[in-house]
Amino acid sequence: MSVTIKDIAKETGFSVATVSRVLSDKTGFFSQQTAAIINETAAKLGYKKNMAATELVTQKSNVVAVIVNSTKTNFSDQIINGIQKKADEAEKRVIILYAGDRDERSQRIALSTALERPILGILLLSVDLFPSNLAILTSSNIPFYFISISFKDNMLNYIASDDQEIGYQATNYLISQGHKNIGIAGLNIENSAHTGALRFKGYQKALREAGIVFKSDWLQTGDYSYESGVTALQNYYLKKDITAVIAASDLVGIGILNECNRLKINVPAELSILTTDGTSLCELVRPQLSSITQDFYRMGYLGTTYLINNTQNNAYTNIAISQRQSVKSLNKIEH
Amino acid sequence: MSVTIKDIAKETGFSVATVSRVLSDKTGFFSQQTAAIINETAAKLGYKKNMAATELVTQKSNVVAVIVNSTKTNFSDQIINGIQKKADEAEKRVIILYAGDRDERSQRIALSTALERPILGILLLSVDLFPSNLAILTSSNIPFYFISISFKDNMLNYIASDDQEIGYQATNYLISQGHKNIGIAGLNIENSAHTGALRFKGYQKALREAGIVFKSDWLQTGDYSYESGVTALQNYYLKKDITAVIAASDLVGIGILNECNRLKINVPAELSILTTDGTSLCELVRPQLSSITQDFYRMGYLGTTYLINNTQNNAYTNIAISQRQSVKSLNKIEH
Repeated sequence: MSVTIKDIAKETGFSVATVSRVLSDKTGFFSQQTAAIINETAAKLGYKKNMAATELVTQKSNVVAVIVNSTKTNFSDQIINGIQKKADEAEKRVIILYAGDRDERSQRIALSTALERPILGILLLSVDLFPSNLAILTSSNIPFYFISISFKDNMLNYIASDDQEIGYQATNYLISQGHKNIGIAGLNIENSAHTGALRFKGYQKALREAGIVFKSDWLQTGDYSYESGVTALQNYYLKKDITAVIAASDLVGIGILNECNRLKINVPAELSILTTDGTSLCELVRPQLSSITQDFYRMGYLGTTYLINNTQNNAYTNIAISQRQSVKSLNKIEH
Repeated sequence: MSVTIKDIAKETGFSVATVSRVLSDKTGFFSQQTAAIINETAAKLGYKKNMAATELVTQKSNVVAVIVNSTKTNFSDQIINGIQKKADEAEKRVIILYAGDRDERSQRIALSTALERPILGILLLSVDLFPSNLAILTSSNIPFYFISISFKDNMLNYIASDDQEIGYQATNYLISQGHKNIGIAGLNIENSAHTGALRFKGYQKALREAGIVFKSDWLQTGDYSYESGVTALQNYYLKKDITAVIAASDLVGIGILNECNRLKINVPAELSILTTDGTSLCELVRPQLSSITQDFYRMGYLGTTYLINNTQNNAYTNIAISQRQSVKSLNKIEH
């Protein structure tokens, strides 16, 4: 027979209410010592709270489900830290589910693992769902937000950086440092998430405003990977035309940097690299990479806040999070 | 009123059994097209499988709970990929919970989030539990395995590399390359997990067998962090005594490398660095770092296998996973 809160109250001498508060991780109405005694007794007796049963009865869950890609981006941990922080403040719990690497079946398993349980909502981190899985999600009536990914049609809730602003800000910064021939590398300008297309738009806008005529080979598309950076630099190297490049991710930036190292191109003297993301990877390599640093922590924190507060609100919410420049090693060109 | 499998069977014309198989992600008894129709209909009708209810009735869960530190090691993803692979093969689901960064309360929240729900067992990834939390875990009667962490008393189930062998193998390899003055840096030889103590033991054994007298300043302890590597190199630099160093983690190795870069010490000509872990970080830096490469994927895969197969078996299981050398940039000393 399973141990109940009453058994623990009886064993310790505390009230059922106090035992319940301690075991629910509530704070403020009992001493540390009381908590210690109750927790020790609960452990000794083998007490196990059956939250699933409670949730089924009340139909109110305190769980936020987070879906991430299996091959995670290096910024996922920052987003998750923001999610955990807000969830902790609001006394909610977080479960994380891996959705494979652009694999339809894995996505569906992650989604169904979330939807088959009592949850208050779902956060999807940079997960570009297949249409079949998006249909399952949208028909579930469970609140959800996409984080760090945006969509063309604006019919889905998402919280991401303003990608056009990222492209614009990065390009303007390089122009302010005297660069005129500026590459943009490693981004996908065609997929359903329009991150890359928006960044390219911001880049073109900044060039246009500065009276710089864009050359088509300045754009080297890719998939935000290390390899995209390597390939982009090889293509740039053939023309020897650019003095600075905007990398679509930290990994693209490091791919470019390492290929420069192999080809004896001095960074930043011969080529300045400005990456997008600004995770700790920028500080591990030498020279350290400058970046347009996105506020991933805030995306996670805010997404969780909206999920918790707006569970009945069906209005589409698209939030743009601002970013900052982290300048470490860029070459300034004097004209 | 909620939509049932029967409703979907009625709507699509398929049998309840077929609908059930499709919606449970079973394979082999229906065509892709059947699956598509059933899934579309389920999505259209807003079908939501209530697995928690099913699990409460049957008392059999198909969920593996994985607990990780919030400040994750860079090898956690490899372990989780191994876990996901095995879980997928066995038709189990995986939920991941963050346990803070050596924080007692966060650990307890992660543990209770797992234990309050129907799960078949828990895997703890490099999580060094506080005694109070370990008591909760061991008294829960839920099967568990620790992964990539080992314990002195051998009274807990764990699956990890053979850390003494790692220290022995690393040292022997450097000796075989002509090194005699070999540092070991960034490891903790005192905490309850005895990873560092075992590696140091293997290191000492290899030195002894080669007739090399250990000098106390060759050991630079730390906490497996980047900063530990930086500090270790600064201490080595004062003596200028060693020609090679074994780093306790990839991050320790990169800390040493970057501090060498700052102090104009040529790697590997003046100092060979052999790191422990062997994650992709070793390939991002220049020069690339050689490593004793641990098989983290296999740890996750095997841990999940044991959890699924041995849920009734209370014998302590401690498995050592072998590792391999990945040599990229080491200096050979000719005598």
